[in-house]
Amino acid sequence: MQSQQLNRLGVLETVRAVHEGCATATAIVQARLDIIEAGNDDIKAFVAIDPERALEEAARVDAGRYKNGLLSGVPFAVKDVLDTAEYPTRYGSPIYADHQPRADAACVRLARRQGAVLMGKVATGEFATQTPSEARNPLRVSHTPGGSSSGSAAAVAAGMVPVAFGTQTTGSIVRPALYCGLIGYKPSFGLIGTAGLKTLSHTQDTIGVITRDVPDAAYFTMGLQGARTAGHGIERPQIALCRSRQWDYISSETHRAIEELVRRLEASGARVVPVRLPAMLEALAIQQPRLFMFEALQNLAHEFEMHRDALSTRLQTRLTAAAGVTFDEYASIRQQVQRGQQMFADMMQGFDGLLYPAASGEAEAGHQEAGDPRFGALWSMLHVPTVSFPCDVGPTGLPIGAQLVGAFGEDTRLLAAATSVSRLATQP
Amino acid sequence: MQSQQLNRLGVLETVRAVHEGCATATAIVQARLDIIEAGNDDIKAFVAIDPERALEEAARVDAGRYKNGLLSGVPFAVKDVLDTAEYPTRYGSPIYADHQPRADAACVRLARRQGAVLMGKVATGEFATQTPSEARNPLRVSHTPGGSSSGSAAAVAAGMVPVAFGTQTTGSIVRPALYCGLIGYKPSFGLIGTAGLKTLSHTQDTIGVITRDVPDAAYFTMGLQGARTAGHGIERPQIALCRSRQWDYISSETHRAIEELVRRLEASGARVVPVRLPAMLEALAIQQPRLFMFEALQNLAHEFEMHRDALSTRLQTRLTAAAGVTFDEYASIRQQVQRGQQMFADMMQGFDGLLYPAASGEAEAGHQEAGDPRFGALWSMLHVPTVSFPCDVGPTGLPIGAQLVGAFGEDTRLLAAATSVSRLATQP
Repeated sequence: MQSQQLNRLGVLETVRAVHEGCATATAIVQARLDIIEAGNDDIKAFVAIDPERALEEAARVDAGRYKNGLLSGVPFAVKDVLDTAEYPTRYGSPIYADHQPRADAACVRLARRQGAVLMGKVATGEFATQTPSEARNPLRVSHTPGGSSSGSAAAVAAGMVPVAFGTQTTGSIVRPALYCGLIGYKPSFGLIGTAGLKTLSHTQDTIGVITRDVPDAAYFTMGLQGARTAGHGIERPQIALCRSRQWDYISSETHRAIEELVRRLEASGARVVPVRLPAMLEALAIQQPRLFMFEALQNLAHEFEMHRDALSTRLQTRLTAAAGVTFDEYASIRQQVQRGQQMFADMMQGFDGLLYPAASGEAEAGHQEAGDPRFGALWSMLHVPTVSFPCDVGPTGLPIGAQLVGAFGEDTRLLAAATSVSRLATQP
Repeated sequence: MQSQQLNRLGVLETVRAVHEGCATATAIVQARLDIIEAGNDDIKAFVAIDPERALEEAARVDAGRYKNGLLSGVPFAVKDVLDTAEYPTRYGSPIYADHQPRADAACVRLARRQGAVLMGKVATGEFATQTPSEARNPLRVSHTPGGSSSGSAAAVAAGMVPVAFGTQTTGSIVRPALYCGLIGYKPSFGLIGTAGLKTLSHTQDTIGVITRDVPDAAYFTMGLQGARTAGHGIERPQIALCRSRQWDYISSETHRAIEELVRRLEASGARVVPVRLPAMLEALAIQQPRLFMFEALQNLAHEFEMHRDALSTRLQTRLTAAAGVTFDEYASIRQQVQRGQQMFADMMQGFDGLLYPAASGEAEAGHQEAGDPRFGALWSMLHVPTVSFPCDVGPTGLPIGAQLVGAFGEDTRLLAAATSVSRLATQP
């Protein structure tokens, strides 16, 4: 295969090409390295890269060690809040400018064990918070790629890798994926083991992936577990269309794009049932920043106490404000979350997915802000899986879209529904 | 105050002595260092210690920096699965023999920020699993102190520190605490931030403390959050006495000790209501090892793949067996856990605590086994807080006792109830 073909292969296509002998892992990795070399100065997706090491790893796959892995030859990038034994890990902070972990994060090693090839580390917001990284949106470099998984989205959108690990605590996977015209998949909380993740909000931090299509996200994630999935869709999915007060914050174009998607779904035979978010869950969503802040102030205790001046002003301000959340309030929110989880499980009975906005609209111009994360807050709190996908382009030509939320632990069902729904959303 | 007095002070007593000027942090720390020096060769609780550093830290407290902290001058020890910036962190494994983390774990830094003095690292089972450490039971050195928080329990029981951080994934705090005649407190999941904890089972790993009495455990833990608690008990607590199939695994002496405690509770005016564990929760408890193994195999992926020969045979065997748990089974157990959490919340309505065994009986002779962790399994899965405490001594003179389990997030209420119940249990 030609290099121009190799660097367009998705996850499933790459594995097939390697398994069938149509391409070597080495050629595939080289094709991606070429894109990184040509584009990274502009896009600033990668913050640590070592081409020789990546090629050595590809050669080991070709030599047979991982040739039959579920992810043989798949080049992948890793958000820089996940440890890597052979690349520095800086968490988007100057405090860790020269930090070299001892071990790979669990997800990184699980991918490599299946023959995937680690291409390096990609940019993250400071400790996965809203302070933006340097990464640019490959669809329009004057615009933000979103955050905090900014480098993950930028690297996939620029064709540097077919898949990247991201993390989401509020909306840090689904939003950047959408801003860059990609698929963002945040699994059920804890589905991917968190060893080696720099903890920010320990009851919400979730590892997930950004890819070009839903079957790639499903295949890669299940591959980590040693499980194979075909990436089929489902016919006539049962969809809840969930209105909430957060809809007041989305653009009219996003409203229209979701309405158009609903029309297409109904025309295709799917059932779409409008539901209102229960008042209890509306109230819960509003409390998410306070839950987040209480936990972040604990988890960044070392950095806040020992290196405060090296934190961004934004993060310092936020952590200082976090001291206003009392322990009793925190414990009460955690109890409400537990009740909310049960309420949402009941609400999802009979539905394959729940349709909801993923961002207010297109990616914003400039790089001082990474966009509004609120549309992920409730789903992160509730630990439920979600897949974001583009539906259309907005007034300036950048992607707009939505997310499909699943019941807790029903990732397989959600991914199948999202495969169908996202295809329908982007059909001409 | 004399050194013999200083080294007997609990957490609350230490803080009071420092705040009232009755003792310096330096004198308190020196008194504990003397005990460590005299006893650690036999007890093997500490695996890393630096007396000069501890004394320097105490001097900083005396110089005023942390003099008004909620934990001023409290010497504490840290289980060696929690990172420390100034002490090596080996996770109980030769793989990390020379490992030096960059930052303190969140809980360590939170304690130091309140003026507590870090005395060093204490022994842990290999990666907090059942493979025992070298630590001995100070009550009888031929016997196990339990595990995996073996060093934490041994250090407190030997008088080396008044409080130590432990971690519990199945029964790793409550059992060693009981085996050593102490209080073990496992908070609600996530109450103490987990940044800097070596992840084993990310949906169960919980940081907690081992102390000499319940008010010390409550005061130290709330102090981490910047909150003050008086450590009062409650009059006439409402207690559920919860029978389950696991009771078949406890000794007749433990049965009798719990029965005697129930008599005392009733005589004191408490209400004790016998309840049966619902069948759904009985079934859940049995599945805990499979949930644990699936997550541990993910989280130890780097060590299992890159350093397998340096893992104990026991852990290798266990991780190899873990491959038999499928992703679908795992997802199903996680869903059942979520339903179980709701069921348990309903079941606890009106109760301050639920009385349950914490260990089968006394600590076993020898150091090849660390005891049966099963009595913690369900409470770890359900994320609920629990406090273990001694009631009596068994046939060979070592402690036997029970645990009091609370509703999720109701830690303050549970600790108050446990204060009363544990006092009653040990009255002559």
